[in-house]
Amino acid sequence: MSGETDPLVLFMPSGRRGRFARGTSLIAAARSLGVHVESVCGGRGICGRCQVEIVEGAFAKHQIVSAADHLSPVSATEIRYAEKRVLKPGRRLSCATSIEGDLVVDLPSDMAVNTAVVRKAVDTRVFPRDPAIRLLLVEVPEPDMHAPLGDLDRVFAALESDWGLARPTVEHSILPLLQKALREGPWQVTCAIAHDHEEDRPHLMAIYPGLKNEAYGIAVDIGSTTIALSLSSLLSGATIAATGAPNPQIRFGEDLMSRVSYVMMNPGGRAEMTRAVRETVQAMIETVATEANVSTGDIMDCVFVGNPVMHHLFLGIDPTELGQAPFALALSGALALPAADLDLSLHPVARAYLLPCIAGHVGADAAAATLSEGPHRQDEMMLLVDVGTNAEIVLGNRHRLLAASSPTGPAFEGAEISCGQRAAPGAIERVRIDPVTLEPRFKVIGIDIWSDDPGFAEAAAALGVTGICGSGIVEVVAELFLTGIVTEDGVIDGSLAARSPRIVQSGRTFAYVLHETPQRTLTILQTDIRAIQLAKAALYAGIKLLIDRFSQPGGPAVQIDRIALAGAFGSFIEPRYAMVLGLVPDCDLERCQAVGNAAGAGARMALLNRAYRREIEATVSRIEKIETALEPAFQDHFVAAMAFPNKRDAFPSLALVQALPNRDASGMLLPGQGASASGTPDRGRRGGRAGRST
Amino acid sequence: MSGETDPLVLFMPSGRRGRFARGTSLIAAARSLGVHVESVCGGRGICGRCQVEIVEGAFAKHQIVSAADHLSPVSATEIRYAEKRVLKPGRRLSCATSIEGDLVVDLPSDMAVNTAVVRKAVDTRVFPRDPAIRLLLVEVPEPDMHAPLGDLDRVFAALESDWGLARPTVEHSILPLLQKALREGPWQVTCAIAHDHEEDRPHLMAIYPGLKNEAYGIAVDIGSTTIALSLSSLLSGATIAATGAPNPQIRFGEDLMSRVSYVMMNPGGRAEMTRAVRETVQAMIETVATEANVSTGDIMDCVFVGNPVMHHLFLGIDPTELGQAPFALALSGALALPAADLDLSLHPVARAYLLPCIAGHVGADAAAATLSEGPHRQDEMMLLVDVGTNAEIVLGNRHRLLAASSPTGPAFEGAEISCGQRAAPGAIERVRIDPVTLEPRFKVIGIDIWSDDPGFAEAAAALGVTGICGSGIVEVVAELFLTGIVTEDGVIDGSLAARSPRIVQSGRTFAYVLHETPQRTLTILQTDIRAIQLAKAALYAGIKLLIDRFSQPGGPAVQIDRIALAGAFGSFIEPRYAMVLGLVPDCDLERCQAVGNAAGAGARMALLNRAYRREIEATVSRIEKIETALEPAFQDHFVAAMAFPNKRDAFPSLALVQALPNRDASGMLLPGQGASASGTPDRGRRGGRAGRST
Repeated sequence: MSGETDPLVLFMPSGRRGRFARGTSLIAAARSLGVHVESVCGGRGICGRCQVEIVEGAFAKHQIVSAADHLSPVSATEIRYAEKRVLKPGRRLSCATSIEGDLVVDLPSDMAVNTAVVRKAVDTRVFPRDPAIRLLLVEVPEPDMHAPLGDLDRVFAALESDWGLARPTVEHSILPLLQKALREGPWQVTCAIAHDHEEDRPHLMAIYPGLKNEAYGIAVDIGSTTIALSLSSLLSGATIAATGAPNPQIRFGEDLMSRVSYVMMNPGGRAEMTRAVRETVQAMIETVATEANVSTGDIMDCVFVGNPVMHHLFLGIDPTELGQAPFALALSGALALPAADLDLSLHPVARAYLLPCIAGHVGADAAAATLSEGPHRQDEMMLLVDVGTNAEIVLGNRHRLLAASSPTGPAFEGAEISCGQRAAPGAIERVRIDPVTLEPRFKVIGIDIWSDDPGFAEAAAALGVTGICGSGIVEVVAELFLTGIVTEDGVIDGSLAARSPRIVQSGRTFAYVLHETPQRTLTILQTDIRAIQLAKAALYAGIKLLIDRFSQPGGPAVQIDRIALAGAFGSFIEPRYAMVLGLVPDCDLERCQAVGNAAGAGARMALLNRAYRREIEATVSRIEKIETALEPAFQDHFVAAMAFPNKRDAFPSLALVQALPNRDASGMLLPGQGASASGTPDRGRRGGRAGRST
Repeated sequence: MSGETDPLVLFMPSGRRGRFARGTSLIAAARSLGVHVESVCGGRGICGRCQVEIVEGAFAKHQIVSAADHLSPVSATEIRYAEKRVLKPGRRLSCATSIEGDLVVDLPSDMAVNTAVVRKAVDTRVFPRDPAIRLLLVEVPEPDMHAPLGDLDRVFAALESDWGLARPTVEHSILPLLQKALREGPWQVTCAIAHDHEEDRPHLMAIYPGLKNEAYGIAVDIGSTTIALSLSSLLSGATIAATGAPNPQIRFGEDLMSRVSYVMMNPGGRAEMTRAVRETVQAMIETVATEANVSTGDIMDCVFVGNPVMHHLFLGIDPTELGQAPFALALSGALALPAADLDLSLHPVARAYLLPCIAGHVGADAAAATLSEGPHRQDEMMLLVDVGTNAEIVLGNRHRLLAASSPTGPAFEGAEISCGQRAAPGAIERVRIDPVTLEPRFKVIGIDIWSDDPGFAEAAAALGVTGICGSGIVEVVAELFLTGIVTEDGVIDGSLAARSPRIVQSGRTFAYVLHETPQRTLTILQTDIRAIQLAKAALYAGIKLLIDRFSQPGGPAVQIDRIALAGAFGSFIEPRYAMVLGLVPDCDLERCQAVGNAAGAGARMALLNRAYRREIEATVSRIEKIETALEPAFQDHFVAAMAFPNKRDAFPSLALVQALPNRDASGMLLPGQGASASGTPDRGRRGGRAGRST
């Protein structure tokens, strides 16, 4: 028991604190507070992973005066460790020191367990770590004729006595190497233990002579267009390298259905695509391993997510069934298998884990995004949208979750748009239109200044302005609507041709000239507006189906508290413009946010904490799936959603920060429509998210 | 509840009986009595494995009048089954019939579950069956867009609802084949479920469209000299083929130590020997599969036993450590692994199980023999001896078990004997010597009559009498001792040369001419007697150490109630002669029995019932191991055991049925020794076990 006079110890960065009797081991104190201090050697002063730094000084807020000599003097264990390995000045081994006075203890970031997962731009969350694969050092008794337990059996006994580990199963391929490892140790070995499901027996997957202090894992999001991969230390939790590459299956078909068709039309097509994606993943692994100076043989665990077609093709399963009703998944549950069976060359018995798929069109990527954004962990009603060729939609809270996909088509990715292109240097990504002059200003990927800033012309001439990408299309269409050039119904108003030379006739409709140089003219055609209308109407209709399902029959529609826009497109569109066009329903604009590659983040969570695997497995099993194509109301919602932002639905929250041409100040539809244009508020003109460089 | 007026049903061959309400399903009645009726289809009338026959007639003893029409009329299910498959006349499907009156029900032997394991010559025991791999037919709901559970996940759900099976893990290699199997079924598949440890999750190892009704397993005893293999149906439990082959490692060294030396001296030697034994096992598997008309792809489980060196070499582990103190096993516990990793080509994901080793010289073969003979299941004190180059010895009862090995050397196998040879046609296997004339008569492997029967000379001339095998050596030395030709101390008495031309001088000692033809003379030399003395003294001294350890210090030696002689040598020696020579201690001769290949029988038990795996694992972990080489008393016991039968120990039970030259009627040593010869009793002359043909 600790009393008022016992030393007070504060652990940073977690801020957890407690009083401990003098002489208490520092690592034991940390653990008793739930501060996870890593240890491979189990407190033998060998692995050095439990290093801490004492922050000296008076901390009035905490009523602590902390000093280095409030820890026990440097121990023989620490001296021995420092002689063999590096112990930076000021660092102590928490397993080999005891508390002798008040302390502020810092877990250095290169050691800390609750390390933030690096998520570009938006995510700085921390989460607890409990990977499915651990390294455990044991000292094994030498063989004894009188108690002739085998080498392996004595390793098992040491794992039980030192680490409380139940008798594991064993990777048989290590049996021939066991004798040598033990005798080289000597009689000290590090065991790599795979233990994903708590209720399963642990598995001894590898054994190393002496101390082994490195184990890594990869998390991979296999998108139809792009594969994103990150490399993390399973010991520290730190993400140490990341890379992205185009999905090589693009050469068999741009979108999912064309890849499914390729399989149906070409014998061996499935195998070709499986091989292509696996080879690319392997190459990406080698890239990050080289970059981080990590041996691929030390990569022991992998987590993969992807949409159902990517998931099936990666596993070598024919995706044909996914191309037609009833869109039958070969498997929907999570899957664990040897990485070698995915043709990956990592540690010889590295493991792989695939998150569950939610439905035939809602994949493991959506499950991973759900895990990352956590609608199931909160009371608020969250809408999670991952926009790709199919938009995957999850709606709900801790009590209930719904999911669906909507066939948005590729317009949001710049396809089906006359001057559309992928997000790449030269593409227009931001657009503003002056409500009075109807003149545009824009920003181009690869050029840091706006088109009306000095020096832009030179930069543009050098780079070339080649087209407009997804986020640029959303912005230009929204601005055309806000300035009254495009009506609520999506028609370019030809009568304005008199006011501005930007509005020109094009066949039987009108068009808006966004950019003109002697080399190239970038024009927004009426058909481009239609393409965006169709895409956004499909997305919105899908969302509405979920809202309908969630709401009490006959009662008011549930109110959405928060919207998370995931994926590449979701990360780069301005939430305000998404709402102005009616891609998503009304919501407090501050709470409608881009969340980056949420699927990749969720994969990394599953890599670094096996409890998240159980969490998402349980969550997916209770998600209610809605097949949008089968819902009679879909068509009705779709038609209403063709209008900007919508023919029926109110946008009161949006109206607070953004006047809409056809709405009153409370966001309700005006009796007449296509009312006078209202300018974008000033904070919208310069504000918004910074460029892609963040 | 069943009352006195309910029909009485008796199941044969188990003899279990009970009263059941009219209308009770016959299979349910059987199961409620613990009569295990097989079923792959779970009572759907598809698999036909639950067939029974009604035995008609009045059974006064049981007060039953049984008639075929005391079962419900032939059902539509049975008619449908009979149309698709064969249902022999009189056979009924117990899952599709109900009880309508008193019945005697026979489980036909071609269906019965508690089928006797065929053990040559001696073993007719039955044991309950519960194999680690089962076939389970399930009907799987078709895919449903509204509840988009994957194909695999619906198979899991069906396994749970139909068979109560917890969610299994899955053999990932079947994933690409799953869709086809289900749709071919259609929507009816047979799952092969591996579920060895009850506490582990079951594993879906294979899936077949529709009904799959065949699954097999092999049990293999890898002896240093001979490999014995049997093939059993995992569904019926019947052993349907067996074969034996020389261990091909013999070319690297006759005995264990020479094979260990070969590994130490030759780089690659370990790999060579591993490959040799695995190839031979594969060839043997193909032999039995062909013989039984079974596809090797339907062999799904294997059990292997062998001594520690054989065990390690089969697993690809260097056995060098076993050749020197402390005789460290690389692993002692039981091991489960994929059969493919043993280079066996069976079902692609067939499993393999190796029983635990007891100690560095007491292997998985001894564990299997223990499982088969069951000292740990009884109150009686049992001595189990498996004689090979090393004798493996287990002593004890349900309360306590001891084990050791003794270095008997190869004399009992015919090596180190001047005219010794392996048991093969032409070898003398039985010998009797007339106490008056000192003339021998003998029996030769391959000739059914004795040497003094008419026609023997012709048969012998045709076959050739080439040497004497292990059991023959034991018999001839015992007869020489009983007739006084050899003294208690093992000396051939040269003074008898005057009485018989059979006794001849050979250098400075004498010899006994057993057989003489113009082509060949078979003579028992003094050195042959010495070799047998050394071998049997080592065996006996090892047994004595265990008896010492078991007995209260200072108290009387524990009394042995039963002796089981296992292995090839143990199967063919006459227990009486083994006791006359003092290979084993005194015991009721009726209870000293050859038990055949007990190691092979134990392996088969572990193949057909996973509970036996747990039983022997638990048993081995509590066996006390004694390293004979380290026991100071060994030498003393060894010296005393050089005499026939022993210098010190009484043989009172033996003396009741066999007079001994140097003993009184109670088996105690006479004051003088080498007393008058006493003839073998008549029942010994013609009696004993039948020839090898049984």
